[in-house]
Amino acid sequence: MENPTPHRITRSILLFLIMVLPAAAPAADPSAEQPAAATRTHEFMLDNGMKLIVKEDHRAPVVVSQVWYKVGSSYEHGGITGISHVLEHMMFKGTKKHGPGEFSRIIAENGGRENAFTGRDYTAYFQSLEKGRLPVAFELESDRMRNLQLQQAEFAKEVKVVMEERRMRTEDNASALTYEQFNAVAFLSSPYRIPIIGWMGDLQGLTLDELHAWYRKWYAPNNATLVVAGDVDPGEVRALAERYFGPLEPDTVTPPKPRPEIEQRGVRRITVKAPAEVPYLIMGYKVPVLATAARDWEPYALEVLAGILDGGDSARLARELVRGSQIAASASAGYSLYDRQESLLMLDGAPANDHDVAALEQALRAQVAQLRDAPVTVPELERVKAQVLADRIYQEDSVFYQAMQIGQLETLGLGWERMEEYLPRIQAVTAAQVQEVAKRYLNEDRLTIAVLDPQPMDAKVRAGAAALGGGHVR
Amino acid sequence: MENPTPHRITRSILLFLIMVLPAAAPAADPSAEQPAAATRTHEFMLDNGMKLIVKEDHRAPVVVSQVWYKVGSSYEHGGITGISHVLEHMMFKGTKKHGPGEFSRIIAENGGRENAFTGRDYTAYFQSLEKGRLPVAFELESDRMRNLQLQQAEFAKEVKVVMEERRMRTEDNASALTYEQFNAVAFLSSPYRIPIIGWMGDLQGLTLDELHAWYRKWYAPNNATLVVAGDVDPGEVRALAERYFGPLEPDTVTPPKPRPEIEQRGVRRITVKAPAEVPYLIMGYKVPVLATAARDWEPYALEVLAGILDGGDSARLARELVRGSQIAASASAGYSLYDRQESLLMLDGAPANDHDVAALEQALRAQVAQLRDAPVTVPELERVKAQVLADRIYQEDSVFYQAMQIGQLETLGLGWERMEEYLPRIQAVTAAQVQEVAKRYLNEDRLTIAVLDPQPMDAKVRAGAAALGGGHVR
Repeated sequence: MENPTPHRITRSILLFLIMVLPAAAPAADPSAEQPAAATRTHEFMLDNGMKLIVKEDHRAPVVVSQVWYKVGSSYEHGGITGISHVLEHMMFKGTKKHGPGEFSRIIAENGGRENAFTGRDYTAYFQSLEKGRLPVAFELESDRMRNLQLQQAEFAKEVKVVMEERRMRTEDNASALTYEQFNAVAFLSSPYRIPIIGWMGDLQGLTLDELHAWYRKWYAPNNATLVVAGDVDPGEVRALAERYFGPLEPDTVTPPKPRPEIEQRGVRRITVKAPAEVPYLIMGYKVPVLATAARDWEPYALEVLAGILDGGDSARLARELVRGSQIAASASAGYSLYDRQESLLMLDGAPANDHDVAALEQALRAQVAQLRDAPVTVPELERVKAQVLADRIYQEDSVFYQAMQIGQLETLGLGWERMEEYLPRIQAVTAAQVQEVAKRYLNEDRLTIAVLDPQPMDAKVRAGAAALGGGHVR
Repeated sequence: MENPTPHRITRSILLFLIMVLPAAAPAADPSAEQPAAATRTHEFMLDNGMKLIVKEDHRAPVVVSQVWYKVGSSYEHGGITGISHVLEHMMFKGTKKHGPGEFSRIIAENGGRENAFTGRDYTAYFQSLEKGRLPVAFELESDRMRNLQLQQAEFAKEVKVVMEERRMRTEDNASALTYEQFNAVAFLSSPYRIPIIGWMGDLQGLTLDELHAWYRKWYAPNNATLVVAGDVDPGEVRALAERYFGPLEPDTVTPPKPRPEIEQRGVRRITVKAPAEVPYLIMGYKVPVLATAARDWEPYALEVLAGILDGGDSARLARELVRGSQIAASASAGYSLYDRQESLLMLDGAPANDHDVAALEQALRAQVAQLRDAPVTVPELERVKAQVLADRIYQEDSVFYQAMQIGQLETLGLGWERMEEYLPRIQAVTAAQVQEVAKRYLNEDRLTIAVLDPQPMDAKVRAGAAALGGGHVR
């Protein structure tokens, strides 16, 4: 089953890692002297308001450079949805100094890899290079931060590329289409309802002027965070950053309005009929995140709760629904505590062949009821925490992931230091807290449900649906 | 049962008429020489792009002056929802020449009445006066079209007034709250999802700068239509308009983007739990309107279809559901063919005491199925058409309504001449056409359902809920 939930950061990251990492950030050598956890993080502020964070990691002679802008689909609004993602594409279409496509060519010539990523709350640009090549990345990134040349001909071409991407990944992908509509019904006033790739009607109406304005509004050094991780010296990186990014003029940047979600007051349920082979179910409960939680242990309790349901083969959904009752062909749960606004704890799955979606929904609801009705036992809680922490520690073995997380936390306004509280906070979660968040948040009045009702497919659609879904990696 | 559907123009108009008309536009004297239908409409274009339409009606010595701006909630987007309505309020807060509140005082001193109205597709300002006082209205309206003084102190006060209006009419009004959420779920990408009064979070974040920008963007003579109806001479009105409005500078006005609604692919259903005495049900089917219909007879067939369900005591809902089976305490159907974008055919109602909402829904669905399954008989069709036409003709007896309709059709871009095709087009609708639109549009895949699930009320809420709901009349 494809994963149609591009907003869930952990999965987006994994998708990205799969695409970018193999060559750029080799797996940690267990014999290396210095474990990742012991490396230090250094923070600098340039005079123009651009923040630089350097994470040393000397296990391999590589460096990762990431520029994070505080802008993404949740900064958009009806009429220009998808503009952040289109602009991300256009960032490869040249400046006065470097023509269209040169950015990628130069990085490749230097043996590097690069990509970009648009999320709900950020747009980020990455390069992985041999450590001596960092100036190459800085020269190119600083150039396009203020000197992008947006040209009508390139724009006209590129917006068609994006529309085609939307067609393949959303229109012709039944589970992604279901997710998109689910998401727009779950959030009614919050900008999290906006699809990252944008509504087709808005893509069709997008203009170069709007793109210009979006670029000017958000692409300034004082709205960016530069994250560098790898085998580097912090002082040298700082000097290099000052040389390349320091001369860039800051600009007035007005942070986005809060646009809070209205109070949900009862279950919402939609059906989406689309060509597909199997039915598919999404359930989402409105829950707080670190940035919004009144009680700051709650997001960690929700993280553990998601781990109880879905965190390896011994987690409840796999054990009880896929293997045990065999109601589900697949079932998963997801939650991210790192979001700018109120978000969702999600459950999704496909029923096994001889069951229908209603049976799967009932089984998922029973799982939720169990979390509300009984505290998790200490042995299970400890096992789950160990799994959650292992996932995190395993991820932190990757230089790339560390940089990702620093960039994300900075861009969300939480501060990268929050990274370090993750382990102790998870460890401190109690069974009573897990039950309390289940009771408080996993109830009918906060629930949105979407059901994909499969329609006959023709061969063409079948081929399209097999293509990659997920986040909007360029 | 209150009517929580402020977007339905016919009802909004009626609400307005109730509030404004009694003194300003007396009912037609049946002995008057000249029936309304025989009066003439004159169209002029001022040099600055402002359109003037004059409708003569000499039955009474009064004149109605209306200024219609092409802007309303469907021009807005997340973050500034409600801004058109707030601006409408601010239009009474003074110019350089006339201080806050003077507008209303001067009109009142001249024995006139005035009001304003914000809809999804327009913002309009009306005065009814003794026919000799038309210059008073023109002087004031032309002044505030370009010279509004938006002051922080007045704005801070007025936005609180609007929030209080929202609290009373929406937050504390269960059926309006249900409608608001229904509407935001029925429309996912179309701006028709935006509540006219705005989301509370957006009202809280609205700034004077945004209001300034909104005023500059839309309040220009070339984005306005002046409609004058009553006992006037068209040439004199034109001269007067040229004198007062002619000197106003035109501005660049970019029409709003289409922002079409995505294709609905299955039923959507929400529950809204709110303090209320009785349950309430809303059902809406996506249907075309005059501005969007591929086949232009369809909106007229839908108009007749709505009339079959709800058009006086002999219409089906009243006859079969309220009086016959007595399942419904109330039940109504509504449709407006005059909208800028795809809209809804709506059904709503409250179950009778000994029935539940599910029974009412079933009964309404049975009514819809009947329209799909069997053509209406010729006698019923003729009776309904007569009723629909009688409603229209009765409304056209009112000078005010005529001006309203001209302004609306102009503002929607349809042109006032479309008014005149209404009667022959309705008369031409066949039973087969009614059945065809029922089959084509009134099906599950286009349906959104909202159920108000009543929660216990306290005395305070009870008092609030009894207050007037409906359109956003100032």
